[in-house]
Parts: sequence; C-alpha cells; structure tokens
Amino acid sequence: MDAVNEAWNTRFWGHTFYDWDEIVLPDGLSEEGEGNVSAFQGISLDYRRFMSDSLLECYNIEVEAIREHSKDVPITTNLMGLFPLLNYFYWAKHMDIVSWDNYPSLTTPVSETAMTHDLMRGLKHGAPFMLMEQTPSQQNWQAYNSLKRPGVMRLWSYQAVARGADTVMFFQMRRSKGACEKFHGAVIEHSGHENTRVFREVAQLGEELGRLGDTLLDAVTEAKVGIVYDWQNRWAMELSSGPTVELNYVREVHKFYDALFKQGIEADMISAQADFSKYDIVIAPVMYMVKPGFAEKSEAFTAAGGTFITTFFSGIVNETDLVTLGGYPGELRNLLGIWAEEIDALPLGQYNEIVMKQPYGKLTGSYKCEMLFDLIHAEGAEVLAEYGSDFYKGMPALTVNRFGEGKAYYVATSTDSDFMEGFLGAVCAEKGVQPLVPELPAGVEVARRVKEGRSFLFVLNHNAESATVRTGDVKRRDLLSGVTVDGAAEVPGRGVLILEEAE
Amino acid sequence: MDAVNEAWNTRFWGHTFYDWDEIVLPDGLSEEGEGNVSAFQGISLDYRRFMSDSLLECYNIEVEAIREHSKDVPITTNLMGLFPLLNYFYWAKHMDIVSWDNYPSLTTPVSETAMTHDLMRGLKHGAPFMLMEQTPSQQNWQAYNSLKRPGVMRLWSYQAVARGADTVMFFQMRRSKGACEKFHGAVIEHSGHENTRVFREVAQLGEELGRLGDTLLDAVTEAKVGIVYDWQNRWAMELSSGPTVELNYVREVHKFYDALFKQGIEADMISAQADFSKYDIVIAPVMYMVKPGFAEKSEAFTAAGGTFITTFFSGIVNETDLVTLGGYPGELRNLLGIWAEEIDALPLGQYNEIVMKQPYGKLTGSYKCEMLFDLIHAEGAEVLAEYGSDFYKGMPALTVNRFGEGKAYYVATSTDSDFMEGFLGAVCAEKGVQPLVPELPAGVEVARRVKEGRSFLFVLNHNAESATVRTGDVKRRDLLSGVTVDGAAEVPGRGVLILEEAE
Amino acid sequence: MDAVNEAWNTRFWGHTFYDWDEIVLPDGLSEEGEGNVSAFQGISLDYRRFMSDSLLECYNIEVEAIREHSKDVPITTNLMGLFPLLNYFYWAKHMDIVSWDNYPSLTTPVSETAMTHDLMRGLKHGAPFMLMEQTPSQQNWQAYNSLKRPGVMRLWSYQAVARGADTVMFFQMRRSKGACEKFHGAVIEHSGHENTRVFREVAQLGEELGRLGDTLLDAVTEAKVGIVYDWQNRWAMELSSGPTVELNYVREVHKFYDALFKQGIEADMISAQADFSKYDIVIAPVMYMVKPGFAEKSEAFTAAGGTFITTFFSGIVNETDLVTLGGYPGELRNLLGIWAEEIDALPLGQYNEIVMKQPYGKLTGSYKCEMLFDLIHAEGAEVLAEYGSDFYKGMPALTVNRFGEGKAYYVATSTDSDFMEGFLGAVCAEKGVQPLVPELPAGVEVARRVKEGRSFLFVLNHNAESATVRTGDVKRRDLLSGVTVDGAAEVPGRGVLILEEAE
Repeated sequence: MDAVNEAWNTRFWGHTFYDWDEIVLPDGLSEEGEGNVSAFQGISLDYRRFMSDSLLECYNIEVEAIREHSKDVPITTNLMGLFPLLNYFYWAKHMDIVSWDNYPSLTTPVSETAMTHDLMRGLKHGAPFMLMEQTPSQQNWQAYNSLKRPGVMRLWSYQAVARGADTVMFFQMRRSKGACEKFHGAVIEHSGHENTRVFREVAQLGEELGRLGDTLLDAVTEAKVGIVYDWQNRWAMELSSGPTVELNYVREVHKFYDALFKQGIEADMISAQADFSKYDIVIAPVMYMVKPGFAEKSEAFTAAGGTFITTFFSGIVNETDLVTLGGYPGELRNLLGIWAEEIDALPLGQYNEIVMKQPYGKLTGSYKCEMLFDLIHAEGAEVLAEYGSDFYKGMPALTVNRFGEGKAYYVATSTDSDFMEGFLGAVCAEKGVQPLVPELPAGVEVARRVKEGRSFLFVLNHNAESATVRTGDVKRRDLLSGVTVDGAAEVPGRGVLILEEAE
Repeated sequence: MDAVNEAWNTRFWGHTFYDWDEIVLPDGLSEEGEGNVSAFQGISLDYRRFMSDSLLECYNIEVEAIREHSKDVPITTNLMGLFPLLNYFYWAKHMDIVSWDNYPSLTTPVSETAMTHDLMRGLKHGAPFMLMEQTPSQQNWQAYNSLKRPGVMRLWSYQAVARGADTVMFFQMRRSKGACEKFHGAVIEHSGHENTRVFREVAQLGEELGRLGDTLLDAVTEAKVGIVYDWQNRWAMELSSGPTVELNYVREVHKFYDALFKQGIEADMISAQADFSKYDIVIAPVMYMVKPGFAEKSEAFTAAGGTFITTFFSGIVNETDLVTLGGYPGELRNLLGIWAEEIDALPLGQYNEIVMKQPYGKLTGSYKCEMLFDLIHAEGAEVLAEYGSDFYKGMPALTVNRFGEGKAYYVATSTDSDFMEGFLGAVCAEKGVQPLVPELPAGVEVARRVKEGRSFLFVLNHNAESATVRTGDVKRRDLLSGVTVDGAAEVPGRGVLILEEAE
Repeated sequence: MDAVNEAWNTRFWGHTFYDWDEIVLPDGLSEEGEGNVSAFQGISLDYRRFMSDSLLECYNIEVEAIREHSKDVPITTNLMGLFPLLNYFYWAKHMDIVSWDNYPSLTTPVSETAMTHDLMRGLKHGAPFMLMEQTPSQQNWQAYNSLKRPGVMRLWSYQAVARGADTVMFFQMRRSKGACEKFHGAVIEHSGHENTRVFREVAQLGEELGRLGDTLLDAVTEAKVGIVYDWQNRWAMELSSGPTVELNYVREVHKFYDALFKQGIEADMISAQADFSKYDIVIAPVMYMVKPGFAEKSEAFTAAGGTFITTFFSGIVNETDLVTLGGYPGELRNLLGIWAEEIDALPLGQYNEIVMKQPYGKLTGSYKCEMLFDLIHAEGAEVLAEYGSDFYKGMPALTVNRFGEGKAYYVATSTDSDFMEGFLGAVCAEKGVQPLVPELPAGVEVARRVKEGRSFLFVLNHNAESATVRTGDVKRRDLLSGVTVDGAAEVPGRGVLILEEAE
C-alpha cells in the first residue's frame, strides 16, 4: 500500500489509499474526463498498462486454444500500426510473426505510412512482417473515401514490401452486401465479376508478385539509425496536464523520421528496451519518461562512440510518472551536459527562432521553432545554436555534449522541417551514415532489403508525374521490368523499381 | 429468425441471432454512436421504422379518444416539415388534414421553405393544408433570433397560402411570462396591448384574409413535375458508413427543387409510392434505396413517355439496406442504360468538371461538380457530358437513355446550381413544361393555385427592393389591391400579388 | 405548491406540480442539457441558488469546527474570481476576510484581472482582501502554459495590491513531484534550489514588500463610480433561451469597466443589494433580472442627484425569471423614460450604427454596435443618439431621462469600445468624477489606495517598453525607489510606481 501511494504520489489532492478496496477504476466517475485527460495520472497510466496486458492475456488464451490442435502453425493477430492503447512491443513477444492493417487516407503523408511499416518491422527486431489488410481501392469509414488512383494500390503494396512485408494481402475478397462495411472496397466489387479496374490492378500485382517468387522473402533492412518509439511514454505525456495541449508524440517522432526519409537514409523504429549497440545514431524524440536502465544504456552507447539525440521535454519523469528532481532533463542531464531551468509554452502560431552560431552541415542562419522552448544552461555541452528572440534570446537552442567517444545532441524546441533535414543530414554525414542514393527528388521514396549477400533497392515514385532518380555508380537490374539501370533511372508516375545490384 | 438474419446481413461482424431475446435496441450501449452513426445499419433502420410507427400508434390512440366524443371534427397534429424521424407520408394517411409549424430563420433560403410547404401539400396528394404555427416576428430557440423585418410575416404567410395552405395561424396569441419560450414572439407581446408593429401587421393580414374570404379555399396546384422525397431513403443513407460524410439528402433534393423554383416551374413533392402517371417529369434525387415496385413503376412511367431523372448513389440497396448485387445502379440500371463501376469521394473543396459534349438547352461548356463522382459506363445510354479532369476524365457525367416512349437521365455527380438550372430548364422545355411566367427576377417567387376553372397566380417579392415581373400576355386582376396587371407588374419590396386571370 | 407553480410558471409545457414529490432535480435526465441550457428556467435558477447556499452551508460547518478550537483566528476560503456557480456576495457575509486565487493567462486582458480584483474587494464593501494564490511563473491547466515574462509576476502582484490586496501569496512553495499539478509553477522548482529566475524574482518581491512594511495595509479605494455585478442575474440570463446565444454577461460588464480603466477612473464592483448613495454614478449593465427593491433604490438614488446607467435587455424579469408585463424595461421603465417595443438580434458579424444627434463630450458622428438592438420609444427621455440603418434607423439608441435631481441613461445596444470610452468619459466629466491622472498611455494602469489621510497612487506599466505618465501638479514620492516625481514619470517596461503625495 505504501509503495502504491508513493508511486502514484497520492498525497497530492488527498488521494492517499488506506485499503486496497478504496482503489477504483480511473474513469469518468472517478478521475478521467474526455479523451486522455486524467486528474490522477499515476493510476491512469498503470490502468493503461493493465488494459494492454489484459487484452494480451486474452490473445494468449486464444493462442493456447489453437496450440492444442496445431503445434507449429504460426500465430498472429492483425495489429493497427500506431494504435495508441496497446503496447505492441510487449505483444510482439507473444506473436510468431507480426501482421498489420494499413489504411492510409488520400492525405496521409507517405512517410508516415513508411514509418508505421518500419515500426511494425521493429516490433520483432527487424523480422519481416505480414501486410495483413489493405483495401484494393476504397475505404468506408474515413470522412471522404476517395478511390486509390490507378497505380496507387500497387505502389503502396510495394512500399510495404520495401519496408519489410513478406505478404501483400487484402481486406476483402468480395464486398459485403450489407451491414457496416458494405462500402469497403474489395477485390471483387458488388458488380460480382472481374471486369473492373480494381480487379485488374490486383490481378496484375498478383502476377508480378508471383514472378518475384521468394526472391525477397526473409530479406532484411540494415539501418544504422534507430528511432525510439515508446507506447508508455506516449500514454504518460498525453495523460499529463501541461505544459501545452499541442504536444503530439507521434508528430514529433515523425518529424525526425520524415527528415531522414526525404534524404533516403534508412532508420529502424525501436523500443526503449532495444539494444542500441548495432546503431551509429539513436534518436529518442521527446523522451519524457525515462524508465530504469534507459539512461545508463544511452550513456554506455554514447561513451562507446555512438551519437545520441534527444529533445525538449525529455528526462522528466520515471516509469510511474514521478518527476526526477534536481533539474531537467533528469537522468539524461549527465549525458547531455545541460540543465533546463524552465520550459516555455507558446500558443499555436507564435514562433521563436533557432539561430546557428556557425554553419553546421547545411544548417546556417536561422529557422522557425514553436510550441515548447526549453530554457537551458550548458553544463559542459557546446552550444551550436541559440534562440533568436524573446527574453531567452541568446540561450542555447541546440547543444552537443562530447561524452566518452561519442556525442549527445539536445534539440531544445520543436523545429521546422528545414532545420530537421539539415540537422540530421549533418549528424549522419558526421557519422558516415550514407543515404541510399546520392540525391532524392521530392515525393520519391527509397528503401533497401538485403538477403544472403544480395541487395535490393526499392525506388517508389509517389508523384503522379515521372521522376529521374540518380542511383549512383553501381549498375543495377530492375526485378520487375528486367531493365538495367546505370547511374540514373526515369521512374514513371506512381512507378516502382526493385533494383538488384548487378554482379 | 433466418429471415431477420438475412435481412440484416447479420453474418457480418458476427451478429447472427439464434434467439429473439438476443435482439437488443440499437443504441449507445449496443451499436449506435453519436448522431445517426450505426455500426449495424439493418437493425437501426428497422428501429427508425418502428419508432415512427409507434408514435403514429400513439397519435391514433388520441384520435380514438376524440372520436368517442366527436364523429366528424377533422383531426390533425402539427407536423414539423423536414423533421427526420417521422415518416410523414405514413402519418398523413391517418390525419384528416395536414397541418404544420413553419419556423424558418432569417437565413433559410426561401426556396427551402417553399419546398417544405410543397412537401406538406404532397403528404395528402396535393390536398390543401393548415399553416398551424408560425411566429409573428421573433423566435427564441434559434442562435440569433432576428425580428421578421416589416412585411416579412405577411410575405411568408402568403407564401404558405400560395403553396397550398388554407389557414394562416400563429404561435402564439400572447407571450408567456415565464419558462422556456418566454422570448418567443406573439401576436400580443409582453407589453400586453395592441399598439405594436407586430400586432398591426397581424391585424392588417387578418383584415386582408377576411376580404379574400373563401376565394382560395380548396384551390389546388397542378404541377407536371414530381420530385420524390423519401424518409426511409434518408434514414438508410445517413445510417450508412461511407462513401462520404458530406452527403446530405435534403440538400441534394433541394438543389433540384431550387433550380425549378428559380425558373418559376411548379413541382410537387411526392412519395416513392406515389402515382407517377400524372406527371410529365419525375425526379428522384439520390435514390439510394429502391423499394419493391419502384423500379418497375419508374420503367412503366418512362416507357409510356415520361421523363425520369435520377442521380449518383441511386439504386444501391433494397428496403432492408442490402446492396443490389451485379452492378450499380442496381434495379435502375436497365432503365438508365448505364453501369456505375466505382464511386469516388473527394474532400470538401475539391472539384471536378462536367463538360458538355454539345450544347443542351442553355447548357454549354463546363460546370463544377463535387463530393461524389460515379464512374459510369454507358450501356445503351447517350452521353451528354463527361468529366473534365482526374483519371476518369472523359467518362460520362450526364447520360440519357431512350426507354420506350420516354427518356431516363442520370446525373453522375453533385452539380452546381448553374448546371442544375440549365439542365432542368432544358428537360422541361423538351417536355413542354412551361414556367408560370416568361422570366423571373432573382428573389421573386411565383406559384399558382386553381379552383373551379379559376386560376390564381401568386407573385411574392422576397427582395427588400421592388421588382418588375413580366406576367405574360394574359390580363390579370390583383385580388389584394384590385389593380389590373397587363403584361408586367411592379411588385414592391416584400410585396405580394394574387393575380386572377381576367375573363 | 401554488406559489411554486406560480413562481416557475409551470403551466407552460404542462409542468404543473401537484405534489412535492413530483419535483425532480433539473439535470440531463429532466430538463437541462449541455452547458447552461435548461428547458425549465425557473427550477434551474432556484437550483443554482440552492447549490450555492448548500456549499456555503458546508463552509459554515467547517467554520464551526474551527471555532471550537479558536475564537479569533480569521477564517476564509479561496474564492475564484468570476467563477459562475457560487454567489460570492452571499458567501462573503460569512467570511472574516475575502481571499482569492488569481490565474490569468498570457492573453487575459489586464483590465479583466483588475475588474476581478475590484469585484473581490467589493464582496465585503471595499475591505482589503488576500491574494491567496498565484503562480510564480507557469500554470499547468491552461491550453498553453506560457512562462510569466521577467517582471510580470512582480507587476501582477502589485496590481493586486493596488486594487486592495493586503497579502501577496503563491501556490506553491515547492513543485509537486507527481500527479495532476506537477507542471504547476512553484517558488522552488523541480530543480530543488534557489538559483532560478523564478526564485530570484519572488525573493526580490519579498524584499520589497518587507521594506513597504504595513504602510499600505488597510488602505482603501474611494471610487465614485459603482458597477453592479450580480451572480443571479448571470444565471438567469444564461439559462434563458433567446434572444441570442452571443450574450455574455461578463463581457458586457467588462466593456463598461474597461472604458473607465483606460481613462484612469476608479470604480467599485458592487452587488445589486449595495448602498448606492455613496456613489455619483451607478452602472448596471444588462440588468436582465430586477429583484425586489432594486428599481425603487435606483429611482431614489437618481432622484437625489445620482447618475444611473443601464443597457439593452434590462428590467426584463423578476427574481423568479417571470417577465414584468406591460413593456420593457419593466420596473426600470419609469426611471428611464422609455419603452422598448422589440429586441432585435443579429448574427455575429452584422452591425448597425449609433449616430450621435449632436456631440456629447468627445462622442460625435457614428459608432458600430452589434448583437442586440432594443427598438425603443422615448417616453420623456431625451434622445442623444439613434440607429443609423435597418428598418429601425432613426429610432433611439442612447437616451437620457431627467429624474428628480439626477439622470438615467439607457444604452440600447452593444457598443464598441470607442463609443463606450467617449460615453463614460462624458458622463464622468458631467458629474465631476475625475480620472486619477490627466492622461493615460495605452497599457498603463493606475489605481489609488488611501489611508489615514495618506494617498498612494499606483502606476503599473503593462507594456514591455517604458512609458511616460503625466501625474499632474502634485509632487509625489515613489515608495519603491524613493525618487520624487514632479508632473510626469518615466515608468520602465513592466515597471511599478507607488507614489505618495509629498506633504
């Protein structure tokens, strides 16, 4: 009882429990309001853990029921990408293979879909996964259920393959004639026959995948950058009151991912418990919650020569949402060589600037920043950039701390995409992490899978118009068309290349 | 039980019922969410039917209580126009006379009020109705309860009469001194006396109506165009998930009505069960649900020389919301001579164009269209216009199918008002359906009632400024002023003429 | 039972009660909806009274528990300014001293904070109060919890003192390490030490206040203008349906307060039960509910030479929300010499104009007005301005009625701030009510406290930049800096002067 009271800091607002029976569910009748608002974060956070684990237990009961009849059939369940309420890193331990349902809308950034694929791949440390569900064309539960334009279903299917999918499957074969999803697309539409654009596109894709055979199966991604994504961190942040309603964990993580994506730099999405030693660079955006061992692991990784990057509003609380006293960023302060004295929050639409003290890679001059602004003091860290206005003008906005053989960067505010691309480009260059291609046109995605010494470079043109992609000095063969690419390739609008290095 | 399971397609999402007791009300504890969202449309649709019928049963119990004491007093209840939850076409069968409450706001389009009057008249196949309630000036439950400007109460009262009302009544004689509607206008305001603008306007109107006597009582409207309005169709569409949240049945029906209204062409609002044979043109906008017999009746009507018009998202489901398999528009496909392979949905603010293949009436060039876009193939129908952009550029956007002696038009997308006016103008001209006056200034409404060989043309100027209306070659006398109108009349701002053809 | 039915006008919508047991709580299961909407205002209004009184009873039980142990310790509870649900004028009678929590956001108008301080001072008829809680810098429950900029905490602390606070206290000494308010600022932040900007600013303020000693304790404000603020009036207005959703009692009261504030004219916030005789001018904005005795008191005050000001939507109902029949503004009609025949409501963004018939003080030409528009007839009152457009163009918009030795003004619509400043400036000049300084730069606040013949003029510069304030012919000494001010003072950005008249 005392431990619970301590973990939840129940003395605040008179929540002290004297008996187990006094503990009630955190819901609208007790301490929670609409959405993720809670007036009692500790219990709400633990309740989310409990619910994720309970549903996992339910999954395991079903697994056991199957195991009675089949010892070796692989068992999975269809996950839902960034779905907030289930801690998929825990779930994946109990799944033989990860599978998931991919339902982007017409306006979902393609890099967000890519990030989600990478996250699903990361659940089992890079093992290939199944694309369990996607619609051949139309959704029914989005606000505006646009058709997938010609070629888009194929393009997005290969995007899944490029990022680790070993299957391309659909919901559903035949459109239901009634009930909730009767307007959800299918391979065989309500017309009931195969003479449709949708069927033809699916059939063409099937034919292509048949030709590819098992060439790509079991191939893996070899990223040198790891981005930490942590469900519990998200829960804790969203449950907290303050410092701003605008803080969105997924959006901040995606900013980092997107900056790498646009430069053709591979990344793994990894858990806070992951082994960092295989990476050159580990990025932990908005690492609000630092669980036991995380700080030590990050320090060891950096001391051994790794580059560690984190941001504003990191190192604030422990695993039960208790603040690490003594100065932000708490357990990460030693590694980062800074102290964040205050955290300013500005309304949407108000900005400050990050002013570079000297050029760093392509970074030079000033960049817009917004939302949260740590007011930090360098305690050993070098200041690379400072704020450009307000009463903290001249205080550090970007720092780097030499730690053992490595470096630890701190981004003190929420930056714009120009800054982020320049910053990560410079860090990667510094560490010798190379992009997959020398230069990447806007709207073109690249990814690589490798297998038994063979390397497959995917080039995906998300534009409606064709694009020229420089692929470097290596001569390659497109597995889909058989054409050889030497130095550069013209990729048609919504076109796909799977380039294997010619021997 | 099997029939219920079949009708509701319960096999989807494991809803199969094995016992009647398993069927629960569709509400927030089972399958319905906020507004009209249901995850189980079949049961929700039937529940709306049940509720409409149950309340009608309640009405009938009250009717019986009255009938015990009075055999012949006409019995009614005040309906509420477009109120979504009661199927008024069924109710009207049990009412001796239709009566309704008309509460437009300052910004309600006058043609929407006109349409609603016409719908109320249509409930009993054109029989005159009662304007049971209107406010002399001010409402209380609108967001901004603006006063009716001088003359507006009179103008809107005559609008009701013009469209079939045989009474002009008010809620309320005297303003309540307390409780919910204490700020609802009344003939006698809180001041308690007759020396008010509102009282004087009511008194003047009463004096005028007294002078008109029974001249107009029982007069009817003789429209050659019928517009189908169907409550069950609306329920089914609103309950469905997809293809767009923007689809609004009333707005789509009103688009057709408004295009006729602006050209001075009379229309009846009719039920899907109505006798079509008295019309030259029948319009069934967004006829999503096609109930038994509707397709056959529409075919017979067209074969006999009628003009039938319907739109995108028609012929999709049967009366229990099960999709008619084999290709949209299902049961209407034969009549329309088309197949809709796909239905695209674009976000609000994105447009395509309807490009005329050749001029049709005043239609020429291209027009904006939005929201939903059927991708159709002509199967016998002639293509009058096609899409102007996107991957379905060049596919049909407007078709006409010759069917027996008649024609069936299909409007494949949601059009702008310019297109709609031109289109309906051309169709009416083709069928010899004439407007009531040769030309109608903006903001002026015309309507006609006839009785025992006498014809009364109402001219209602909704503008604040006067307007000149050409009334054609017939010499007419204004019942209100006694003035004779020969060819054209100057109607003052918010003025009304009731023109009887001079003998 | 009859009295209840009469008071709540239960005959409307069949609410008549025949037994006490039939009366149920007004909530979502009976007559109330979201927010303050009620379909049965009488019971909802009395329920608010009951709840305010019940919580006060709870407070009194706690007072008694303390009194058993301590006969003379002053007892208070922390009030929350404009909090709508508790009638603080009743509460204050039971409190030994008023105390309150002041949590403005970065965008709260400083004059709204000032008004709230004045209201707290008004609760016990001008007695000094305690600033019980404020944050040293950051909030946690606002949308964007901006830091208080350097100097702002000190400035706002002196604002409280200037307006009657005899204490400056903080929530909280030490930031909580967990639970709901862990991101609420504190004197000692999570860093746990005193080397912070926030601590230093608090310490500096404490040192200053220590130097001031008891100089200002018990000093009072001597305003000649009283503004009526009435919780029950607010409840009744918000519960009513119509005439507009835009009517906001606090905003309308603040318009008057702000116009005085900007001119450096002192005002008291007083209850509807207050003694008016000590004031030269009494303003009762939107005095919708007129309780017994209010009209008589206002008439006596005016007859004796006072100036009374009220507005549109005043004198409508009695204390149980029953309309005073016979013509608006009901019980105030005799005093104002007008009759409001109708009340127009226009949507947000639509305006009319107030056109001055002749200059009045600085008022000349025309001013924008919006929201509600009384259509009044002068019945003895002189018309100072009239509407500029719409069908009531030329009807009175501003009137004054000579009543005994005094005058009663009626502002018939919601005006802009230019009109309000000019109007109140003219009325004050007419009554000889002088501003505290000859001229006040934008963003600078002045206030005065007096004690035993000594007079302390506070000058608070809310701008980030310095401002020059003309302080008049009297030579004064700044208590904080010791500097003597003769005629004018340069006040630094966010600076404070406390000027005592030199002897």
